[in-house]
Amino acid sequence: MRRVLVAGIGSTPFGRHGDATITSLALHAAGAAIAESGLDRARIGSLYLGNFIAGPLTGQEVLAGLVADGLGLAQIPCTKVEGACASGGIAFRHAYLAIATGLCDVAIAVGAEKMSHADTASVTAALNCAMDNAADGVSGLTFPGLFGLAARLYGERYGVGRAELSAVVRKNKGNGLRNPLAQMGATLRDEEIEASPQICDPLRLYDCCPVSDGAAAVVLAAADLHAELTAQPVEVAASVQTRGSPRIGGHRDLCSFDATVSAARQAFATAGIEPRMVDLVELHDCFSIAEIIDAEDLGLIPRGESAAWAREGRTGVGGDRPINPSGGLLAKGHPVGATGIGQIYETVLQLRGAHPNQVRDAAFGLTHNLGGTGVACTVNILKRLDA
Amino acid sequence: MRRVLVAGIGSTPFGRHGDATITSLALHAAGAAIAESGLDRARIGSLYLGNFIAGPLTGQEVLAGLVADGLGLAQIPCTKVEGACASGGIAFRHAYLAIATGLCDVAIAVGAEKMSHADTASVTAALNCAMDNAADGVSGLTFPGLFGLAARLYGERYGVGRAELSAVVRKNKGNGLRNPLAQMGATLRDEEIEASPQICDPLRLYDCCPVSDGAAAVVLAAADLHAELTAQPVEVAASVQTRGSPRIGGHRDLCSFDATVSAARQAFATAGIEPRMVDLVELHDCFSIAEIIDAEDLGLIPRGESAAWAREGRTGVGGDRPINPSGGLLAKGHPVGATGIGQIYETVLQLRGAHPNQVRDAAFGLTHNLGGTGVACTVNILKRLDA
Repeated sequence: MRRVLVAGIGSTPFGRHGDATITSLALHAAGAAIAESGLDRARIGSLYLGNFIAGPLTGQEVLAGLVADGLGLAQIPCTKVEGACASGGIAFRHAYLAIATGLCDVAIAVGAEKMSHADTASVTAALNCAMDNAADGVSGLTFPGLFGLAARLYGERYGVGRAELSAVVRKNKGNGLRNPLAQMGATLRDEEIEASPQICDPLRLYDCCPVSDGAAAVVLAAADLHAELTAQPVEVAASVQTRGSPRIGGHRDLCSFDATVSAARQAFATAGIEPRMVDLVELHDCFSIAEIIDAEDLGLIPRGESAAWAREGRTGVGGDRPINPSGGLLAKGHPVGATGIGQIYETVLQLRGAHPNQVRDAAFGLTHNLGGTGVACTVNILKRLDA
Repeated sequence: MRRVLVAGIGSTPFGRHGDATITSLALHAAGAAIAESGLDRARIGSLYLGNFIAGPLTGQEVLAGLVADGLGLAQIPCTKVEGACASGGIAFRHAYLAIATGLCDVAIAVGAEKMSHADTASVTAALNCAMDNAADGVSGLTFPGLFGLAARLYGERYGVGRAELSAVVRKNKGNGLRNPLAQMGATLRDEEIEASPQICDPLRLYDCCPVSDGAAAVVLAAADLHAELTAQPVEVAASVQTRGSPRIGGHRDLCSFDATVSAARQAFATAGIEPRMVDLVELHDCFSIAEIIDAEDLGLIPRGESAAWAREGRTGVGGDRPINPSGGLLAKGHPVGATGIGQIYETVLQLRGAHPNQVRDAAFGLTHNLGGTGVACTVNILKRLDA
């Protein structure tokens, strides 16, 4: 496998983009990433686009070809990939593999979603496309319901509750406040979180990520092209994709997603580093409880201690293990297909030392993107070139 | 790149499958392909699933993970890919690449679609997800409309018309009659075709592929595993994916799709053979006129002569250049995401000498899968191992 660099990044703000089409959002992000890389777009040999529900919500598929056409790329392979909320991470991995395996020297991964124009019932129905409808759809369970169950179970098992969930929310909302791309940064007190509407016991409104529009893109290049790059590159030390059960009954434990555990183990082995060497993490906090579970599944915090770490502030930007300095899905937003690539965007800024919530001397960053009921997962490890 | 073999194939019949879920169709085809290969499913290292519109039509995404779960595969990367009607071909190419580039030794590509349960308006709206809705959707044009325009233009340019279109229909419907997987084989007279309802001038009902359900799957293996395979393998001599314009206005000529031209040139160069060496072709005849155009774009018949070849019977099973011995999309059916893999299925049977419409001594077969308004294309060349 050849060494691969992130050569350029681009993103729209995450949030509400009114009447903008999903294609226009993707083109904005992709154009910015290409421009920053300094590479001629004629050299791009492959495009992957991560998207989950543009079909049901916008009536538009073939997004990979639409974006390539708008960018004026050559007659290259252009592919939309889908794995629910992990669609963006899957797009990134495939662009990475195209270069690592020698198929081309430059590739682009784009993630995009447009959701805010649709009514709540349509959005809920579309998101439920990520469940196994034959097995679980009939139960009436939604994703907030699933993570509400996980929060109850985790809380009872480890003796934690509202205070720890709120600590995650406060941290991420606070981080989001300083991230210009974030949809819903805020300075929140525990009482405000507790007073927000109950969604699925024990989850409150602030425990749930918002409905978002947005797009993000990264240009990847073979390490041979380093001298030609105009932005500071970072290296992809590992890019792993796994699957887990699409059925809730297929999970032995709702306090862990085995697709994450497996992906993280493979990623650390590939990168040749220990979890303690990770300077910052952008992980899939679709709900506050998800951040607590994911951090343990990734091997970053010992099992059962993640909630306490959150309460003690050890996952803040200046803490022992900074998690979601971007604000995460909770505050930055979750335009589903864009999220996994947005995580790469944020991590690259950190490794360049240019993030608005900079983690000091960040050398290794990890991103974690999880789809559905843990059915698809990607974990990437990025590193500073001098690390 | 390592040599790759098709180790096993499976398919449902194409047609109407009532209340069967799309997942159950995919599992039927995939299970058959694995069983035929003789390989333990635990060795499968990657799964790609081609699907176009399960989101809008069935409310079910994450199909790649669902199928892997149903098959009991390991925690391997499972990815849905989408490129409109070329989704199946794209899935095949990615499974091929996973082995050719050394990522794994065994991979499976599955294609599936479920459409017949939906009403006509829903199906039409879903199929139009393959258009650039911002550029062309507002015109009210549908895919029959687009190919109707192409038929008019081709007819005027080359002085051909109803007789040639009907010759394609008669041939493919007749081939379908002898293919047990085909949805709508028939023995038709020209008068019956001409008397069928007009869809988009000059296209009649019989000029258009039906709405279909179905799934197809292929197991691919590294050539090193040859001795372990229980079914007669064939080799993948080339697998190419290209893009074209998603906008009708982006095509300089409606009598040609440049994504096909480019993919075919690359495929012949990779396989190291001339078009005249192809013994049979499974190409994307979504409409009768499409077969005429595609055969020229693929370089199999000189420009402007394809209609005459059809009229003269030169594209029949025993002709100079057999096209769609399976019955093609017109007669076998077009469960969109399954079509490209169904073409591989048919071609493998031919190269094994076991097809119900066997082309004598077939050594090289070509498959061609085209999406949307030519926005995505795959061309594969398969060869008999002793060829």
